[in-house]
Amino acid sequence: MTDCRKQPWDPRLAPLLKRCAEIRDLNAALAVLGWDQQVYMPSGAAAGRAQQLETLTVIVHGKSTDPAYADLVREAAAMDFEPDSDEAALVRRLERDLRKKQAVPAELAGRLARQNGETQAAWEAAYAASDFRLCADSLKKLLALQREYADCFPEAGSRYDAMLDDYEEGLTSETLDKIVPPLKQGLETLLAEIMAKPAPDDSFLHLDYDADAQLAFCRRLTEAMGFDYTHGRLDLSTHPFTTDFGLDDVRITTRVRRNEPANCIFSCIHECGHAMYQQGIARKYAGTPLSDGASLAFHESQSRFWENILGRSPEFWRNFYPDLVRTFPANLKNVPLEAFLKAVNLVQPSFIRTESDEVTYNLHIILRVELEQALIEDKISVDDLPAVWNDTFERYFGIRPANDREGVLQDVHWYSGGVGYFPTYMLGNLIGAMLKERLFADGLPETPHDALSVLRDRIYRFGAKYAPSDFLRRLTGSAVPDPAPFLRYLREKHLGEAK
Amino acid sequence: MTDCRKQPWDPRLAPLLKRCAEIRDLNAALAVLGWDQQVYMPSGAAAGRAQQLETLTVIVHGKSTDPAYADLVREAAAMDFEPDSDEAALVRRLERDLRKKQAVPAELAGRLARQNGETQAAWEAAYAASDFRLCADSLKKLLALQREYADCFPEAGSRYDAMLDDYEEGLTSETLDKIVPPLKQGLETLLAEIMAKPAPDDSFLHLDYDADAQLAFCRRLTEAMGFDYTHGRLDLSTHPFTTDFGLDDVRITTRVRRNEPANCIFSCIHECGHAMYQQGIARKYAGTPLSDGASLAFHESQSRFWENILGRSPEFWRNFYPDLVRTFPANLKNVPLEAFLKAVNLVQPSFIRTESDEVTYNLHIILRVELEQALIEDKISVDDLPAVWNDTFERYFGIRPANDREGVLQDVHWYSGGVGYFPTYMLGNLIGAMLKERLFADGLPETPHDALSVLRDRIYRFGAKYAPSDFLRRLTGSAVPDPAPFLRYLREKHLGEAK
Repeated sequence: MTDCRKQPWDPRLAPLLKRCAEIRDLNAALAVLGWDQQVYMPSGAAAGRAQQLETLTVIVHGKSTDPAYADLVREAAAMDFEPDSDEAALVRRLERDLRKKQAVPAELAGRLARQNGETQAAWEAAYAASDFRLCADSLKKLLALQREYADCFPEAGSRYDAMLDDYEEGLTSETLDKIVPPLKQGLETLLAEIMAKPAPDDSFLHLDYDADAQLAFCRRLTEAMGFDYTHGRLDLSTHPFTTDFGLDDVRITTRVRRNEPANCIFSCIHECGHAMYQQGIARKYAGTPLSDGASLAFHESQSRFWENILGRSPEFWRNFYPDLVRTFPANLKNVPLEAFLKAVNLVQPSFIRTESDEVTYNLHIILRVELEQALIEDKISVDDLPAVWNDTFERYFGIRPANDREGVLQDVHWYSGGVGYFPTYMLGNLIGAMLKERLFADGLPETPHDALSVLRDRIYRFGAKYAPSDFLRRLTGSAVPDPAPFLRYLREKHLGEAK
Repeated sequence: MTDCRKQPWDPRLAPLLKRCAEIRDLNAALAVLGWDQQVYMPSGAAAGRAQQLETLTVIVHGKSTDPAYADLVREAAAMDFEPDSDEAALVRRLERDLRKKQAVPAELAGRLARQNGETQAAWEAAYAASDFRLCADSLKKLLALQREYADCFPEAGSRYDAMLDDYEEGLTSETLDKIVPPLKQGLETLLAEIMAKPAPDDSFLHLDYDADAQLAFCRRLTEAMGFDYTHGRLDLSTHPFTTDFGLDDVRITTRVRRNEPANCIFSCIHECGHAMYQQGIARKYAGTPLSDGASLAFHESQSRFWENILGRSPEFWRNFYPDLVRTFPANLKNVPLEAFLKAVNLVQPSFIRTESDEVTYNLHIILRVELEQALIEDKISVDDLPAVWNDTFERYFGIRPANDREGVLQDVHWYSGGVGYFPTYMLGNLIGAMLKERLFADGLPETPHDALSVLRDRIYRFGAKYAPSDFLRRLTGSAVPDPAPFLRYLREKHLGEAK
């Protein structure tokens, strides 16, 4: 891999870049161990793997907070780089990461890491039994520690703001307060309008589809989309994910269910969106923290752009539907492309976020954002959480979860320290639609190749050079995610309204 | 994984054991990265992976030579442990490892590691072109550094002795000089006798065997042998190997060629022998250097015992041949067990060590042992090596390699710093036969389960507690590997001579 050790950076940064690359190598090793854990590790090896991950994590943490490293970052910050240079961008990012790490006492970081592990284990037991009470006490302990953590950042406007900034630089509840109400209202109106119309038939998407054939199709599809298999892989795991061990090794996973081919296909397209973002980052950034997306929301904007905006469009499937029909002739030979498109765009309230359509998806998120803010600010009690969840859910969707597994226990995020993460999913959807209007104002490209060229040129190659609000402003003129383009996109697609 | 951090060791060793476990965790991470590199890594990720491995290797080396760690080892060495205790065994092993590491200047170790990588890359190019000259200069540089390395151990009887001790504790050329001549003579005599008889028919082993069916059979076979798949895996790679990431995650690989099912099957049995040794080690030793075989030769004694002594015996195949016939009825339904056994025990001079039969195998090794000793002691020149190889080969086997790829380039060992490694393969074969006479004096067990029980009880559970010569003495009464039982075993099997 060409990496920063061999690239044309300001030579004064050489010692700092060497340390960055070392930290990236260790993080890559952690990622390999994590990938293996979810993809190939035998079941009996879990405890040993956890130990290995802990040992490596401690070492990475030590390297990332080493006083000699901190000195190098400080020295670099005092150098006089052009504001728009890669060097300035790198130093900005390193300073931010270091400041965040230094603000938290090592002892608290250790307690948090252990409590994360403990609460996640409690969640697994609770999920298996579909009984929130089995992890309620553990969640209380974790939330208490997270409040302690948030208090390490007194400059944040609130505890929730401190958490938000960890996942999306600069995001505040003030910003969310501007975005959520119009988005929620727009979605509720739209959902009611859609539900008033007859639902399309999607029964042919629930017939028996051979598992190997699904996977083989997905491999052809992702390769044709532009995923580079000489620098990547596709494997199976319980939950689809994307990981990378440097820009030259980006891996995606999916899952296969015989009677739900759309699950496998759209998971692949989604993860492929993440992966092509990583694969498209400028080689110069390898071995530095710039070799990542601009933010979690930006990353999600790409996975969702590929999955929904492109991946459920006629333009996209004109390329791939003939192959899909050839692969599953018994199930699809009498299904015209138009009927297939209607089926994969079916909108319908359902309980599980990860399986929901693009209209209801953000209502799932809004519910989580409202509840997690109230949780971390101590405005609802953990014991009340399942009932509050179910009441809110019923208000938004008109249906009520029958148990905790299809309610409050469905996502691991809160139980593994991820309060503040969910908003990035929502913002990703909004940013995706903003970018669609800006970059593809004349309509979606006819081929994935054309789409990828534009996205690489305008977004991917910049990696994490710009802060997300700055990048969004450069790309769209607005520094704040705007729900209007997303709502316009949905109304046009699902109600046939003119642009 | 239960590991040494939670086990009944002398409590004074706790700080030392913590550091041992940390080093083992890092080595496990290295092993995961190495496994992935050979099994699943996309081709374009090689350079990045090399960088990650180098970064981790430097960190492990630092931890293993850290003065504070060395102090703990020294303190432990001054404690008064029972000579036969686990504690004494652990300290003995740690002292040996530390002494070896401290004897070599870090600067030399670094140069060696880099030259290893460089020469191995040169070998790959030379192998692809089947032209030794492409790596001759690089090999000269590597050998020069290895002589420098050997000179760090002035207490060794010779440079070759210094190299030998790295791979097999206590092994010297004096010992080899006692073993090799009678072994060589015995094998040459035996080979001539076998070649004078008509060769059995093995043409049915070169028909078309479905690749997936071969793998599925091997999975059933290894599982029935006792390989624990809840703590292990079987995958594919170019060269079969066994690796472990702790006692609870032991992985084997094999390769599949459609017209050579025996290659896949016996590779699996061989690696399974290594793997079951690892899986059988006492849990108490996890996280310490005792969680390994007694030596490379001991490890090889087990892989070869399973592969050849048991794995090509009627006792073994009575259990598995019916399944094999059911799996490949078209190829095997008219082949009786006896004919199958004769075919898999075919003896025939051939060029490639890894594909040779158990009679000629050690002649391949003896050739390498003689040449590598002459190389490291500067008694033959690198430029002459291909010719010397071919002349010697022709003398031993009566056939002459047509090119470097089937001659001097076939094994990577010398080109990756492995001078001194080959003797462990030979000793493994001898030890395997010595153990057969001792542990199974009344004949081989009727089931793999019975064999595994004995081997676990007498060998595996002890891990690396005893030095190899000490362990061999405890098991057989002789501290030195003896070629006589091996020759007796071969003569009985291949010539039908009475025990």
